[in-house]
Amino acid sequence: MTPIITAFEHSPDRGKGLARDMRVRWALEEVGQPYDVRLLSFQAMKEPDHLARNPFGQIPTYEEGELVLFESGAIVFHLAERHAGLLPRPAHARARAIAWLFAALNTVEPPIMELSLARILERDAPWYEQRLPVVVARVQKRLDELCASLGDADWLDGAFSVADLMMVSVLLRLKPSGMLESYPSLAAYVARGEARPAYQRAFAAQWAVFQAGANAG
Amino acid sequence: MTPIITAFEHSPDRGKGLARDMRVRWALEEVGQPYDVRLLSFQAMKEPDHLARNPFGQIPTYEEGELVLFESGAIVFHLAERHAGLLPRPAHARARAIAWLFAALNTVEPPIMELSLARILERDAPWYEQRLPVVVARVQKRLDELCASLGDADWLDGAFSVADLMMVSVLLRLKPSGMLESYPSLAAYVARGEARPAYQRAFAAQWAVFQAGANAG
Repeated sequence: MTPIITAFEHSPDRGKGLARDMRVRWALEEVGQPYDVRLLSFQAMKEPDHLARNPFGQIPTYEEGELVLFESGAIVFHLAERHAGLLPRPAHARARAIAWLFAALNTVEPPIMELSLARILERDAPWYEQRLPVVVARVQKRLDELCASLGDADWLDGAFSVADLMMVSVLLRLKPSGMLESYPSLAAYVARGEARPAYQRAFAAQWAVFQAGANAG
Repeated sequence: MTPIITAFEHSPDRGKGLARDMRVRWALEEVGQPYDVRLLSFQAMKEPDHLARNPFGQIPTYEEGELVLFESGAIVFHLAERHAGLLPRPAHARARAIAWLFAALNTVEPPIMELSLARILERDAPWYEQRLPVVVARVQKRLDELCASLGDADWLDGAFSVADLMMVSVLLRLKPSGMLESYPSLAAYVARGEARPAYQRAFAAQWAVFQAGANAG
C-alpha cells in the first residue's frame, strides 16, 4: 500500500524546501517508494485528527496501513530499516550511521533551529541585535566541529547514508542566514546532497505544492 | 567484553544526575549490562583522543571493542536493539517507541535545553529577565502537549520502553526550574521513572563519582 505523509498546505518558507517533510520526501525518493501527501492548514495541524498522528501538532507524519509515525528522524529511520540504500549493512557502520543521524537532530539542529526562531520570532524583540551573536556563536561551534570531522571526505562516514540525508537537511536550514558561505567544505557537502536525483525529485514535489497554492491564492 | 562509557570527571550539576551519561547508565542498568567508566576533565573532552570518539567533544560516548559510538540517543538505541527489555518486539509498537525516542530528543529536549542555557549562560545578560518568559512558554507548549498525550497512562505507549527512559531523562532536566510542579501527571511520570531500580543504581553510580571528586578536592 502507498504510504501517506503530511506536509504544510502553505509552505512557510515559500517553497524553499526547508520544512521537515523534505527529509521524508527525500528518503522516500532515495529508496524508490511512491507516496501520497495529505496537505494540512495550520489550523488542521492543531485539530484532534492530526494530534492523533502527532501529539505535538507538527508535520511530517507517516501512515502505512495501521502504522502511524511522527518525528522526521523516526520516519526516515523506519524507511532506512525497511529498504536498501540508506543504512550500511555491516553492524558497526550501521550503528555509526545511526549515531550521526542522532547527532544531526540532537546536537547540530538545536542551535540552528534556535537561530531560525530568533530570526523569525524575536526579530522585533528589544534584545534581538544584542543577543544574535550569542546564538550565531553556538551554531559556529557546531559547524567548526563538523567541518573538522568531515575533512575532505564526500560523506560523513563512508558511502552516502541516512546520516548525510539528515545532516544535509539540517544544514540547509542555515541557507537564509548565509552562514554556510563561511564554510566552503560544508557548503560543498550540502551541494553534493542537493545534487542527488532523489533530492531533486523531492524538492520539485514540494515546490509544486507551493506553486499550486500560490496560483490558487 | 565490558563496554566503556565516558562521563564528566567533575559533574557540572554536582551529582544531580542531569548530564547525558545518566541516560546511558540507566539503559545499561535496565538491560543488566556491566560497564566501565572513563572520567574526563573539561580539558580532556576537547583533546584529539576524545574528539576521535565524539567530533563534538561531548559526553557520553560508548566503546565496545572496535565499535565507538557517540550521542546518547544512538547509544541507548544500540543497547535497546541488542538486549531485551527496552523495545517492544511487535514491529508497529517498536517503530512507535522509536518515534517517541526521537520526539524526546528533537521536539521536547531543545526548548528544555534552551531554558537551561538561558538560566546558566545568559543569567547576567541584559535581556535575561525580559526574554525568560518567551523561553518558558516554548517549554510549556511541549509540556501541555505531552501531558495531553500521556493522559492517565503510566508510560507513553504501553509498557516501559526506551521512549520513557529518554523522555523521563529529558524532563528531569527541568528539575532546577521547578516547572514540573505545575504538571502533576508529568511529575508523577518522572517519579515512576526515578523509582525504577535500574534508575536508582545508575543514579547512585554517578553520585559516587561526584562524591569521590568532592572528597578529593
